[in-house]
Amino acid sequence: MDPREIRGLLEQVKQGRLTVDQGLDRLKHLPYEDMGFVKIDHHRHLRKGFAEVVYCAGKTVEQVQKIMEALAKTSSNIMGTRATQEMYQAVLEVIPDAEYHSLARLITVRRGEQTTVGNILVACAGTSDLPVAEEAALTAEMMGGKVDRLYDAGVAGIHRLLMNRDKLDAAKVVIVVAGMEGALASVVGGLVDKPVIAVPTSVGYGASFNGLAALLAMLNTCSSGVTVVNIDNGFGAGYAAALINRIGE
Amino acid sequence: MDPREIRGLLEQVKQGRLTVDQGLDRLKHLPYEDMGFVKIDHHRHLRKGFAEVVYCAGKTVEQVQKIMEALAKTSSNIMGTRATQEMYQAVLEVIPDAEYHSLARLITVRRGEQTTVGNILVACAGTSDLPVAEEAALTAEMMGGKVDRLYDAGVAGIHRLLMNRDKLDAAKVVIVVAGMEGALASVVGGLVDKPVIAVPTSVGYGASFNGLAALLAMLNTCSSGVTVVNIDNGFGAGYAAALINRIGE
Amino acid sequence: MDPREIRGLLEQVKQGRLTVDQGLDRLKHLPYEDMGFVKIDHHRHLRKGFAEVVYCAGKTVEQVQKIMEALAKTSSNIMGTRATQEMYQAVLEVIPDAEYHSLARLITVRRGEQTTVGNILVACAGTSDLPVAEEAALTAEMMGGKVDRLYDAGVAGIHRLLMNRDKLDAAKVVIVVAGMEGALASVVGGLVDKPVIAVPTSVGYGASFNGLAALLAMLNTCSSGVTVVNIDNGFGAGYAAALINRIGE
Amino acid sequence: MDPREIRGLLEQVKQGRLTVDQGLDRLKHLPYEDMGFVKIDHHRHLRKGFAEVVYCAGKTVEQVQKIMEALAKTSSNIMGTRATQEMYQAVLEVIPDAEYHSLARLITVRRGEQTTVGNILVACAGTSDLPVAEEAALTAEMMGGKVDRLYDAGVAGIHRLLMNRDKLDAAKVVIVVAGMEGALASVVGGLVDKPVIAVPTSVGYGASFNGLAALLAMLNTCSSGVTVVNIDNGFGAGYAAALINRIGE
Amino acid sequence: MDPREIRGLLEQVKQGRLTVDQGLDRLKHLPYEDMGFVKIDHHRHLRKGFAEVVYCAGKTVEQVQKIMEALAKTSSNIMGTRATQEMYQAVLEVIPDAEYHSLARLITVRRGEQTTVGNILVACAGTSDLPVAEEAALTAEMMGGKVDRLYDAGVAGIHRLLMNRDKLDAAKVVIVVAGMEGALASVVGGLVDKPVIAVPTSVGYGASFNGLAALLAMLNTCSSGVTVVNIDNGFGAGYAAALINRIGE
Amino acid sequence: MDPREIRGLLEQVKQGRLTVDQGLDRLKHLPYEDMGFVKIDHHRHLRKGFAEVVYCAGKTVEQVQKIMEALAKTSSNIMGTRATQEMYQAVLEVIPDAEYHSLARLITVRRGEQTTVGNILVACAGTSDLPVAEEAALTAEMMGGKVDRLYDAGVAGIHRLLMNRDKLDAAKVVIVVAGMEGALASVVGGLVDKPVIAVPTSVGYGASFNGLAALLAMLNTCSSGVTVVNIDNGFGAGYAAALINRIGE
Amino acid sequence: MDPREIRGLLEQVKQGRLTVDQGLDRLKHLPYEDMGFVKIDHHRHLRKGFAEVVYCAGKTVEQVQKIMEALAKTSSNIMGTRATQEMYQAVLEVIPDAEYHSLARLITVRRGEQTTVGNILVACAGTSDLPVAEEAALTAEMMGGKVDRLYDAGVAGIHRLLMNRDKLDAAKVVIVVAGMEGALASVVGGLVDKPVIAVPTSVGYGASFNGLAALLAMLNTCSSGVTVVNIDNGFGAGYAAALINRIGE
Amino acid sequence: MDPREIRGLLEQVKQGRLTVDQGLDRLKHLPYEDMGFVKIDHHRHLRKGFAEVVYCAGKTVEQVQKIMEALAKTSSNIMGTRATQEMYQAVLEVIPDAEYHSLARLITVRRGEQTTVGNILVACAGTSDLPVAEEAALTAEMMGGKVDRLYDAGVAGIHRLLMNRDKLDAAKVVIVVAGMEGALASVVGGLVDKPVIAVPTSVGYGASFNGLAALLAMLNTCSSGVTVVNIDNGFGAGYAAALINRIGE
Repeated sequence: MDPREIRGLLEQVKQGRLTVDQGLDRLKHLPYEDMGFVKIDHHRHLRKGFAEVVYCAGKTVEQVQKIMEALAKTSSNIMGTRATQEMYQAVLEVIPDAEYHSLARLITVRRGEQTTVGNILVACAGTSDLPVAEEAALTAEMMGGKVDRLYDAGVAGIHRLLMNRDKLDAAKVVIVVAGMEGALASVVGGLVDKPVIAVPTSVGYGASFNGLAALLAMLNTCSSGVTVVNIDNGFGAGYAAALINRIGE
Repeated sequence: MDPREIRGLLEQVKQGRLTVDQGLDRLKHLPYEDMGFVKIDHHRHLRKGFAEVVYCAGKTVEQVQKIMEALAKTSSNIMGTRATQEMYQAVLEVIPDAEYHSLARLITVRRGEQTTVGNILVACAGTSDLPVAEEAALTAEMMGGKVDRLYDAGVAGIHRLLMNRDKLDAAKVVIVVAGMEGALASVVGGLVDKPVIAVPTSVGYGASFNGLAALLAMLNTCSSGVTVVNIDNGFGAGYAAALINRIGE
Repeated sequence: MDPREIRGLLEQVKQGRLTVDQGLDRLKHLPYEDMGFVKIDHHRHLRKGFAEVVYCAGKTVEQVQKIMEALAKTSSNIMGTRATQEMYQAVLEVIPDAEYHSLARLITVRRGEQTTVGNILVACAGTSDLPVAEEAALTAEMMGGKVDRLYDAGVAGIHRLLMNRDKLDAAKVVIVVAGMEGALASVVGGLVDKPVIAVPTSVGYGASFNGLAALLAMLNTCSSGVTVVNIDNGFGAGYAAALINRIGE
Repeated sequence: MDPREIRGLLEQVKQGRLTVDQGLDRLKHLPYEDMGFVKIDHHRHLRKGFAEVVYCAGKTVEQVQKIMEALAKTSSNIMGTRATQEMYQAVLEVIPDAEYHSLARLITVRRGEQTTVGNILVACAGTSDLPVAEEAALTAEMMGGKVDRLYDAGVAGIHRLLMNRDKLDAAKVVIVVAGMEGALASVVGGLVDKPVIAVPTSVGYGASFNGLAALLAMLNTCSSGVTVVNIDNGFGAGYAAALINRIGE
Repeated sequence: MDPREIRGLLEQVKQGRLTVDQGLDRLKHLPYEDMGFVKIDHHRHLRKGFAEVVYCAGKTVEQVQKIMEALAKTSSNIMGTRATQEMYQAVLEVIPDAEYHSLARLITVRRGEQTTVGNILVACAGTSDLPVAEEAALTAEMMGGKVDRLYDAGVAGIHRLLMNRDKLDAAKVVIVVAGMEGALASVVGGLVDKPVIAVPTSVGYGASFNGLAALLAMLNTCSSGVTVVNIDNGFGAGYAAALINRIGE
Repeated sequence: MDPREIRGLLEQVKQGRLTVDQGLDRLKHLPYEDMGFVKIDHHRHLRKGFAEVVYCAGKTVEQVQKIMEALAKTSSNIMGTRATQEMYQAVLEVIPDAEYHSLARLITVRRGEQTTVGNILVACAGTSDLPVAEEAALTAEMMGGKVDRLYDAGVAGIHRLLMNRDKLDAAKVVIVVAGMEGALASVVGGLVDKPVIAVPTSVGYGASFNGLAALLAMLNTCSSGVTVVNIDNGFGAGYAAALINRIGE
Repeated sequence: MDPREIRGLLEQVKQGRLTVDQGLDRLKHLPYEDMGFVKIDHHRHLRKGFAEVVYCAGKTVEQVQKIMEALAKTSSNIMGTRATQEMYQAVLEVIPDAEYHSLARLITVRRGEQTTVGNILVACAGTSDLPVAEEAALTAEMMGGKVDRLYDAGVAGIHRLLMNRDKLDAAKVVIVVAGMEGALASVVGGLVDKPVIAVPTSVGYGASFNGLAALLAMLNTCSSGVTVVNIDNGFGAGYAAALINRIGE
Repeated sequence: MDPREIRGLLEQVKQGRLTVDQGLDRLKHLPYEDMGFVKIDHHRHLRKGFAEVVYCAGKTVEQVQKIMEALAKTSSNIMGTRATQEMYQAVLEVIPDAEYHSLARLITVRRGEQTTVGNILVACAGTSDLPVAEEAALTAEMMGGKVDRLYDAGVAGIHRLLMNRDKLDAAKVVIVVAGMEGALASVVGGLVDKPVIAVPTSVGYGASFNGLAALLAMLNTCSSGVTVVNIDNGFGAGYAAALINRIGE
């Protein structure tokens, strides 16, 4: 609660420039305005290049179309995650400059010139992890981050990772995407001295139990500095990495 | 692999200032020195105020004593996690300036003047979460972070959290420690626009399944920007937060 | 077992108005009539506005059609849960005044004038939780409860909930429907001093394990007064809330 | 936010009876006072006979002693759950009228005359479930509920339950405590038309998995009107039942 | 190993009626002939009215057709479990007297006159459990058991069960089929003093976890004399019941 | 409900030998007497050599002492399962002829001459399974069954089992007790054509998860005729086997 | 790092036959060449008859086509696992001599003459396990192993296994493929004194939990010498067996 | 079944050197002698340096003492796993040359000169994994294998592993022991072209779930040639490795 705002209001009431009813009206909404962090965050987001995000899964095509249309009126950057091609077609009708990233299942709308900052490295273990890795990378880019990619660097051929230590060294924050046993997070975590965000994927079969094996492995990593997001949650990793990446910029 | 170092070595061999055998000797170890990230990291750590860490659980008292004694000779800051009082007594014999933090089960040795930077907020839900919260806070401090604490702010009385929004606003990165249903991470994640590291604790009973409930809740948070570490892993959260916290300092 | 009924019967036998065989016949069925709580409950339900309920999942279209047709002859209010559009079409052939609520997957038949009592608030976290929330709300209405709705009030934007404290205050019992980490139940439970029935939904992915995360979170809530029903069990929550809601009416 | 209160304040500022600074001061704290539900709830609780509750598990003996001593100064009814005999002895030093219920592991302080209302039936399946059942019963009593007990009425000898249908009929809300397969909740739920709160206990062995079997069974009950709390959570059931029980009193 | 057979052989060798080589040859295969229990069991089965069983799931239509055709040449009773309509059509081409039971997903071939003995009661909780109950009942019948059925007798309306105590009393062995919380097994187990075989079904949703809840409940039953088979394993229950049922016949 | 009893009562009322009040009194309790299966079962049990059973785990020493003392007055055979040595000492004070079986943790009281019938084979896989195997064997004996034992016959040395086929052949029902992977149940089930009751034990470590591995294995047996009881539930297996064993005797 | 190579290089620099820049260039890549185990392994594989393997699941048809086309240019033996018929058609367009094994879902390309060595026995429990067994067998063959098959030898009819002890005796390493309770691995492990690789399959239903039951059983085997691979991982078993099989050849 | 032995016996019967009864007697036991693979294996084991093994966990001190005493009379090498110090003292009384390895919890008796063959590398991730690693190493040595150790080579500092590639290269089979996330197995599996046996340990906390995380990770390894044993099963890994190691020796 900003004291100056309230003081000003009280001064106006005292001076009769606001009636008691007008003052009441504004104060009634004040706590929510005061607490209205969403709007404030929203503004800050826009200023800093952060986009509005719609989680499309579990929504109808029409719902997605309407929500994105509404957002497109006030936001310069919009993003829809877990969107289908059909949803995209519907959105395209109302937002002609919407783009679709089929691998990452993202709808994005980017307006105005984009400057990306920092350096987020997205590393992934295998080709099958690409959809999640791309969701993370594109999210981070939409959130204003400069993103570098290091794909297909699984631990079964660890030289592929070691040969790219310069990419690891250059990053400000690293996202590691891996399914199966998820060991890449530990290996990367042991090689760098910067925050690592690990994303387990549901890639695997049998006792991977849809990503549980990778999730548990990443949570139990013996490497320091590694934190974990939900299985297949590329968006969550990209968003968190973007928050870290913009620090100091 | 630093080309300048190798070039210098080759020049010396060419000029005869190093014999082939001497060059061979140094090159033989070079890949490991080159890849010797631990040592390099170690130096960087010392420079940046990061301490050497010993995970004491599953080690004998003597092992802990010997390892910490050895580290104390070369490192200015040392830390032993999950240490017992008995381990501390043994360490105290060989490192008279070692300190013990019984709540956090940490042995610390801090030498030279300490300057802490940034602002890490450690919030926890209830009194029973304190050991984990303190492990996180002290770890972050040992790693050079300035730490603020906001304890006993569980969602059952959400005003305790809302009354302290200034602490949330002031932080560069927030650690949320919570057991039971772990909802605090989501609520904090919804209130701030900075990285949140969530630590599920094993506080709870019955269907908490030793922290599984809180862990799953935190992984499934609907708030963006939240990442998760292992159950009761205060050290991991403190370390990751310290990595983030020093960015831009 | 109603002593007066039996005494009357015995008197009739004693006075010869009933033969021993007639008395035997009636007594033979008495325990079941006595225990015939379903019929008695049924009558009480009808009196109190409670409907007969058919769980349609796992039944054939014909079975649903026949059961509902039979019920429609004796009951004024009927409800079919987890019903498909196809089931509804079949029911419509035999009960022309049947209605279908596609979101909640409910078939309802309401006859006679409806008076709803009390005040049941159904709050839900996100748009994807709507089917379960609507199943709860419609069930509670069919059971004679006055229902208020507070949708899309997830903890990621907690001001949406706090702005509606009047709805929380006005309720006699609150149903909280949430997927993902299910934190809304704890936050609501901390804000009110009335019974809260929490419904975990299967909304989420990865480590939500089809609603397990929300279920465990709700069972481990640190807020008092919260009880839990099965994952996606909107009907169960609506029914239990209606039982509570009619107390004192 | 109560508009009348704010209007009054604004009038006072307008009329000069409050300076702008005084108004600012009061408004600054208003949101929290307004949102200060804990205190308000607290008062309401005291008025209605509800006690302050301390969860003792995971707290030191000294912490429990200090917290209860502080509460005893302002509250007439206090309760400590999961308390040990040792905690009780410490509390007894500072609160001479504290009582200990060893079976239920509760410390209680009851002051002033107690009037209990309504009718809460606590039914349990076997002798081993008694600690949890008693925790529920005593909690409900501390919260102002009149409690009836029906113990050792497991489904292996269902006549024990059927012989006590009068107790079921007389209750306003029923708590069912059962371990092993937890079937009692379903059977009771099928016999009554009032809210049933089921408490799974960790009684059992092998594939009971510390109460998981009973928990899952209760969540999957085919009887309507049953809601569930955490394993062994007698307190939670007693509290929720007391909330329901006081409706209409 | 039958000593008389071996003695005879040795006598023949001693008397020169068998050469050493012939003796060796026969002894070489003896252990397997001796251990050739399958054939022997097979004969015993046929004598006792037991059928040959083919588990069709995971087999191709052609495999099922060929196996059943082969069996039909030597066995009078054949049964295929988990068979599809398509499999049945293929079998029908080669075994014109094959029958299909679509609810139970069984193909049966019954030849010669059937006499069924004993008394196996198959009780089930709800309509959705019928496929499993019928698989159990038909299996038991194919194995020579007389089967009685008591369907839709779930514990939510326990009078339906109590009204049929004569069926329970008349049975030699009882099969209880139930999904959801599986409480029927415990209630029946408490009412009878004969073997009860419990079959959990995958009927239910949410925290039933595809029958896990019912399975755990049945394994943890507080009633004596109850044993359990795999989820949805009507065949297994019918087979085991038939083995018990024929004792003493 | 026995019609003859009621007819007699009605006749007596008709003839004035019972007043209406007397008739009422008796009929009031009739349903429970009628349903009083426990007493009736109890009598039948005594007649057939079945003992009263007390589950001692979770009971205090005094409770066990009192319950067994009371039972000893009316029952000739009593059994206490999961009893400690200390419980036995207390029981011995009041029942001097009580016996203790320390391996099986059973207290037994056997009075009058014992005739055991049938043939129950208890087979177990390894030495560590003996406590559970003995609990099963002694229970079956207390219930009037003749018991044969085949111990240490695990599948790692399958000849130990095959060498004892005569024991398998002689049995009327077989109990198989096994921990670790529980494969013995399947192998025995494949060798015999009689009911097999499988008891998983918690013997094992690591991924045995306290008997879960053996339990799942036994539930998934490919051998027909195998049913399963709870982990370590020797009593349950012995009881069910005794029920089967007495058929036809 | 081969000292001779580096010494040679240094000599050349010393002698001026390599400039410092040339030396630097070669040394820069040396660690990776030195560590270039994949290429080296690759060569060794080709020499020893080992094929290149593409895991096709989760890849697009085009990706599979392109990868296999590229491999076919440098490798004489190629294999694609978990390949669909559609993938095979695409591969066939670019590699006319590619073969498809529909049961095992393998695409193979074998060039040059094949000599297989050793003796790998692949045993499986039932017909439904064939796809996994064939994947194992064909993999082992592609890797240069001579493979013998012993199919449909489940423990429910253990004589089928015992009758084939000669196959077990002849093998150098045995692969056991089994679903349901997975007991075959323990029985085989008890019969042989050679390495046994157990492959749990997802064959089964209910509490098999998609192969978990068999997996746990195999991990808990009481037979020595048994190791386990992931559920349905025929490839992994075949590969590991081939590594063992070639020892000593 | 050894034809020569039987032929000899038949010859003796034919020639009257054995009576028919004597022949019968010997043949009666022959199938078991024939099938007496344990004894035969035993001989082969002794010849090849393999020891007899007693699993001591779950056995009494006396049982262990007696079994080992009996074995010591006929076997030159004996081993007791999971043995306590107390067991060792008891064994020492009867076998004065018994040795105890406290870290590995093994009692060993080695007689005659030992020649070890092959090359088994036991690698482990951290100090806490040592007990399991030593159990594996000592088992392999007792089974006649030459063992090399590479301890404390976890992936958090992967250079420690890479610096020891010569050890990896020299091994015939590698055992990898690791807790926490178990990533070491995958990294080693990617570096070598020989069989790798992975042993997950219960080292870790929280979501390691007593080794489940490492177990699942190892089962889901993306590296070929890795097989897995039970959690903490150092013995199983050592035994399997020894079987592989002796191939070709």
